[in-house]
Amino acid sequence: MVYLTRIEHFNAAHKLFNPAWSREKNEEIFGKCANENWHGHNYELYVTIKGEPDPETGFLLDAKKLSKLINSFVLDKLDHLNLNEDVDFMKGVMCSTENLAVAIWNQLTKHLPATVQLHCIKLYETSRIFVEYYG
Amino acid sequence: MVYLTRIEHFNAAHKLFNPAWSREKNEEIFGKCANENWHGHNYELYVTIKGEPDPETGFLLDAKKLSKLINSFVLDKLDHLNLNEDVDFMKGVMCSTENLAVAIWNQLTKHLPATVQLHCIKLYETSRIFVEYYG
Amino acid sequence: MVYLTRIEHFNAAHKLFNPAWSREKNEEIFGKCANENWHGHNYELYVTIKGEPDPETGFLLDAKKLSKLINSFVLDKLDHLNLNEDVDFMKGVMCSTENLAVAIWNQLTKHLPATVQLHCIKLYETSRIFVEYYG
Amino acid sequence: MVYLTRIEHFNAAHKLFNPAWSREKNEEIFGKCANENWHGHNYELYVTIKGEPDPETGFLLDAKKLSKLINSFVLDKLDHLNLNEDVDFMKGVMCSTENLAVAIWNQLTKHLPATVQLHCIKLYETSRIFVEYYG
Amino acid sequence: MVYLTRIEHFNAAHKLFNPAWSREKNEEIFGKCANENWHGHNYELYVTIKGEPDPETGFLLDAKKLSKLINSFVLDKLDHLNLNEDVDFMKGVMCSTENLAVAIWNQLTKHLPATVQLHCIKLYETSRIFVEYYG
Amino acid sequence: MVYLTRIEHFNAAHKLFNPAWSREKNEEIFGKCANENWHGHNYELYVTIKGEPDPETGFLLDAKKLSKLINSFVLDKLDHLNLNEDVDFMKGVMCSTENLAVAIWNQLTKHLPATVQLHCIKLYETSRIFVEYYG
Repeated sequence: MVYLTRIEHFNAAHKLFNPAWSREKNEEIFGKCANENWHGHNYELYVTIKGEPDPETGFLLDAKKLSKLINSFVLDKLDHLNLNEDVDFMKGVMCSTENLAVAIWNQLTKHLPATVQLHCIKLYETSRIFVEYYG
Repeated sequence: MVYLTRIEHFNAAHKLFNPAWSREKNEEIFGKCANENWHGHNYELYVTIKGEPDPETGFLLDAKKLSKLINSFVLDKLDHLNLNEDVDFMKGVMCSTENLAVAIWNQLTKHLPATVQLHCIKLYETSRIFVEYYG
Repeated sequence: MVYLTRIEHFNAAHKLFNPAWSREKNEEIFGKCANENWHGHNYELYVTIKGEPDPETGFLLDAKKLSKLINSFVLDKLDHLNLNEDVDFMKGVMCSTENLAVAIWNQLTKHLPATVQLHCIKLYETSRIFVEYYG
Repeated sequence: MVYLTRIEHFNAAHKLFNPAWSREKNEEIFGKCANENWHGHNYELYVTIKGEPDPETGFLLDAKKLSKLINSFVLDKLDHLNLNEDVDFMKGVMCSTENLAVAIWNQLTKHLPATVQLHCIKLYETSRIFVEYYG
Repeated sequence: MVYLTRIEHFNAAHKLFNPAWSREKNEEIFGKCANENWHGHNYELYVTIKGEPDPETGFLLDAKKLSKLINSFVLDKLDHLNLNEDVDFMKGVMCSTENLAVAIWNQLTKHLPATVQLHCIKLYETSRIFVEYYG
Repeated sequence: MVYLTRIEHFNAAHKLFNPAWSREKNEEIFGKCANENWHGHNYELYVTIKGEPDPETGFLLDAKKLSKLINSFVLDKLDHLNLNEDVDFMKGVMCSTENLAVAIWNQLTKHLPATVQLHCIKLYETSRIFVEYYG
């Protein structure tokens, strides 16, 4: 079994804001991240799949095909958008990097070919903070 | 003469949108960057100053003091904010990386000690695009 | 279960020197790393914790709180110090990156909140060498 | 148990070409990677070993010795060479990063000292694509 | 005046070989780089242009347009190709990074819009070696 | 004219301490950097030379030869050493990155071949702070 990782990027706006709480409590808990006018990030996304390489190509999956799948089912729904307002699969959950990584897993796993399995979604929010989710 | 550079980071939301134009023209010119619900970036800021090192300290300027100046006069006005809505010194100009670099120069240059000169503001918008301004 | 990683930095001096051995044997085994006048590194520290995100915040643990814990219990005892001379929890062990990673684990694990578990300490000594410890 | 990783680099030419297929099929499957005049990469190789640190040195294995082993048994056979034409242990397999990572594992594992085990070969083909193999 | 830089990548094979010299002299001067079966690199290309931002867009030049120009006039002629064999504008010169940077300048400068000037071509051959050319 | 840069690394211990001052004043001015037991860094050194490429080789200077010169005249005198105690060319000056960059320039410039000129010494002390010196 080998593991193949493809790294992609997207830019998005978001805020951390729990609508069940007052503005004061949101600012106390989330600090600057609760700014009602939003802030944003250059997210860096690592998608890792696993399986057996095909003897005829040497590929687990052509990295270009993997990139197309990530673009179609994830990046096209996130890039240059507002994570709280514009993304259907983030409705009803807090817009943290933890929840975003889980949502990206759920979004992508059902669209991969049967010959491979999704192994890990790793998501950098800043160059100092990242989240990993293994399903 | 030596040059000292301090690298800082900030996260912000913005959109590219010229209010003199229709929504259609904004989308034609700026594409996804015109999304009215905003997007955002992790900006990386390089501030370079120049001058003669002090013989008693060996410093052009203590890098911690330079960092404090950048924080007080630039980052505190940009970090986790909306560049179009929340930043007084970006009012009335298009919110491009080019204009933001020039505005940061204007913001910072008047607050540096007399023994040094601002040499360059370099601003990464993404890991593939950056702007430099030398005054 | 999700994994959250926070990256921090510290600078320190050290030497590799086994006091049970002669200077000659230390130089034979450790080469330049045995220099009695010390050398030093910019260490890069990755702290990974694991657990369930809180539904109200979306956070496994607020990354700012994790950073404060790492600063209080690890970085304040290592940064700009001499690992052989100034660090009580490195007394009596060889000052290798392997042993330092284990010592950082032991230092930090007892101070994390009960809702999360320490998963990995990853420590870069140079940009080409790093150690991981999983407890 | 601790894990030690040493990062090394090599540059090589290759092409993706299955000799059992026509030129047309190779170009259809592999695109630009099938160019018969070759292309090439700066490969970045992460070798991770695991075991118990030696109490007398604090080392799992001296990183300089690990580097020498990687150079002797892997890099000297790959660096500045043509992976399809010049490398005996890649004969008869497709020259993908997946297969190259497996071949590097097989090449290196038999030459490590008995006190450590090979844990992972991680191989970057470009800054956006890497493969991991755990044996 | 502001400076805008766009970073692009390409992968290529090459060798350093002066056809006026014997194989022995080529190997003496170029070492492993003279391997007749080729080697290759992931080249990283920084293209810097300068000029005045447009007041209506805030752009010196839309970074996407700059990327398209670099792709059409430079990358499409270099990526996944053999620099010695497949590239018309490298015929008759030694295939060094120095000469490649100059050739990329000559290739690109004539296709930029009149409102900007090419300022610098910076080309990384490996993560430790790069060349800059200012015309 | 083209510019060629070679990047090298060294690790060293140092402290910032002016012997004409009291310990209290040193701690007030230099903070943690005045720790009498030293601290240290992974310095990253960029050496840039300029000149005309040789038509027979395409090289400004063989990057391997440049690396050997930097190793012989700079790195062998700094790497794994104490900048305050072990380095003859830093005697009598404050051990700042500013002064170290100037000293490296003076050390290297006299040993370069007549066909090239030293253009810049760029020295990273941490990943956030660097100094440049142009002679």
